[in-house]
Amino acid sequence: MRTPGIGPVTYRQLIARFGTSAAALAAVPDLARRGGGKAPPLRSRDDAEREIARVEKLGAKWLALGQGLYPRLLAELEDAPPLLIAKGDLNLLDRQSVAIVGARNASAAACRFARGLAHDLGQHDLIVISGLARGVDSAAHDGALGTGTIGVIAGGIDVFYPPENEERQKALCERGLVLAEMPPGTEPRARHFPYRNRIIAGMSSGTVVVEAAPRSGSLITARLAAEAGREVMAVPGSPLDPRAQGCNQLIRDGATLVQNAADVVEAIRPFASQVRSPRVSFEPTLEQLNGHDALATVEELLGPSPVPVDEIIRLSGAPSGAVQLALLELDLAGRLERHAGGKVSLRE
Amino acid sequence: MRTPGIGPVTYRQLIARFGTSAAALAAVPDLARRGGGKAPPLRSRDDAEREIARVEKLGAKWLALGQGLYPRLLAELEDAPPLLIAKGDLNLLDRQSVAIVGARNASAAACRFARGLAHDLGQHDLIVISGLARGVDSAAHDGALGTGTIGVIAGGIDVFYPPENEERQKALCERGLVLAEMPPGTEPRARHFPYRNRIIAGMSSGTVVVEAAPRSGSLITARLAAEAGREVMAVPGSPLDPRAQGCNQLIRDGATLVQNAADVVEAIRPFASQVRSPRVSFEPTLEQLNGHDALATVEELLGPSPVPVDEIIRLSGAPSGAVQLALLELDLAGRLERHAGGKVSLRE
Repeated sequence: MRTPGIGPVTYRQLIARFGTSAAALAAVPDLARRGGGKAPPLRSRDDAEREIARVEKLGAKWLALGQGLYPRLLAELEDAPPLLIAKGDLNLLDRQSVAIVGARNASAAACRFARGLAHDLGQHDLIVISGLARGVDSAAHDGALGTGTIGVIAGGIDVFYPPENEERQKALCERGLVLAEMPPGTEPRARHFPYRNRIIAGMSSGTVVVEAAPRSGSLITARLAAEAGREVMAVPGSPLDPRAQGCNQLIRDGATLVQNAADVVEAIRPFASQVRSPRVSFEPTLEQLNGHDALATVEELLGPSPVPVDEIIRLSGAPSGAVQLALLELDLAGRLERHAGGKVSLRE
Repeated sequence: MRTPGIGPVTYRQLIARFGTSAAALAAVPDLARRGGGKAPPLRSRDDAEREIARVEKLGAKWLALGQGLYPRLLAELEDAPPLLIAKGDLNLLDRQSVAIVGARNASAAACRFARGLAHDLGQHDLIVISGLARGVDSAAHDGALGTGTIGVIAGGIDVFYPPENEERQKALCERGLVLAEMPPGTEPRARHFPYRNRIIAGMSSGTVVVEAAPRSGSLITARLAAEAGREVMAVPGSPLDPRAQGCNQLIRDGATLVQNAADVVEAIRPFASQVRSPRVSFEPTLEQLNGHDALATVEELLGPSPVPVDEIIRLSGAPSGAVQLALLELDLAGRLERHAGGKVSLRE
């Protein structure tokens, strides 16, 4: 998962195909060669062991997709992180949760509202998830610190961002839980925040947006929640308040208007039973696919425009597993691009 | 229509049955007798002529259901007013309209919003209808005075209520239009306001609610609009603002969240073609129903609990017209109670 060019989708396909990371690692060079490219530079065992030791030294734990306490709702995402680094109370992962996100420069009223909502959701036995950012995120964590809150951060587990949240992040490591996808020491960059947002949305039965500007990160989180089939909720505001426009537009687009914790509880009720639902099953292994080499056909069907994998499978006439294998080979050869919504294209 | 005990539904049935008010008036005593009660005390021809003369002297006109410029969308209501008294520019009745209603004690921000929204709807060639009350109503009329606005009042056409709106009401008579269902000289009482609200909702393609307290008159107007199949729209506000609760709840209940005139125009577009739609047809006359006396059957089917007329028709096995006639007879005898949603019961 630290190999450049192997994203969460590719990682998941490799593990699904080969069962273990050792088998997957061994297969990568050959797969890439069959796909017509150079194998990605694999990280060394030493590198991996150094990171593992560093995480342990920080008092953090690993959560692996498909195992143990890894958040079950998050595992449903096609691009679920293969591994998460967690510091704090892992028991919080086993309970139903709601995300509260919003503007970093939110109004005092919105922060007060977020804090109160988080507190009240805690009274309903719900864990509050947010991004440990300024404004609404911080207020949400503060409101739920006594009942259970999880902060998902864009950088490494030992990096405090924004710096003024150092105490808050430490408090969450003590009394709540902090999750990071990136390795320790990673300073968060702009591209990390959407990755972080998919984890927030993916772990939660629903996402509540409190004050969000049009085209803000909070709206991305809301979109990711909707794409994952989760409840999207928004707190309305006066049309005269520019900071309310993002939320009002979300409601116009179908988000549930929520005014208090009871509204949120009512909206996410359908998800209550799914927190402990059974896990994704693994696909047939390479051996089972012997005799079905779909690589040439799949390559011919692909072009520079993204097309759904389902369509490739249908058009190829090959078994789904064989097509996936061919895509994996092209992927590891650096010749495939994966897009949102399960679409793929050939790199130019 | 000025006869105590003859409401708009009964009036409409009488006219539908007998074609003219003269024929209906002649038939009432006999119908009431057949229904087993005393005929209601009919108003004299002199009374009616006095009212007609008074309306003329006030420079107002009559609008009769089913005729001329009577508002076509309003005519679709089962309890459409048989007659309206109108003062001002009757041409406004022939254009598509939107109602804006809200709290009398609205915030300054809400009044400013209502005024701006009314102005902008005027720019979209829409007539703005409201109730000439304090607060949001007044602001809406003010905003649309230059482009076209109709005030529907609960009292008589010559009564100014609230008193401070005298100038505004006069301005609407000059540059807009004022409508009244009650006879001249009527001081509005509490029971008149819901009647007034059904006219506002009934004339409009949609109703926009701006700041409404829970259980307020504005929410009644919204409900009446929904029952008439019109678009219900609401302007959201912060959950921290108690005055926003009614509107936020409306949105939760399915009203369209609107932030500006463009949102309103988009929502009511489906109604644009209905403004000039053809009129309700009349039912078979008494002669056509000869040989079908359903009175005894209908009376037996009725009790103190309200039941839908459709159900009475179905259970009776009699033609719809015969059942309606029997109901009319019971009604005029003072023995029938008509309820919302086309339900009827026997009076205890």
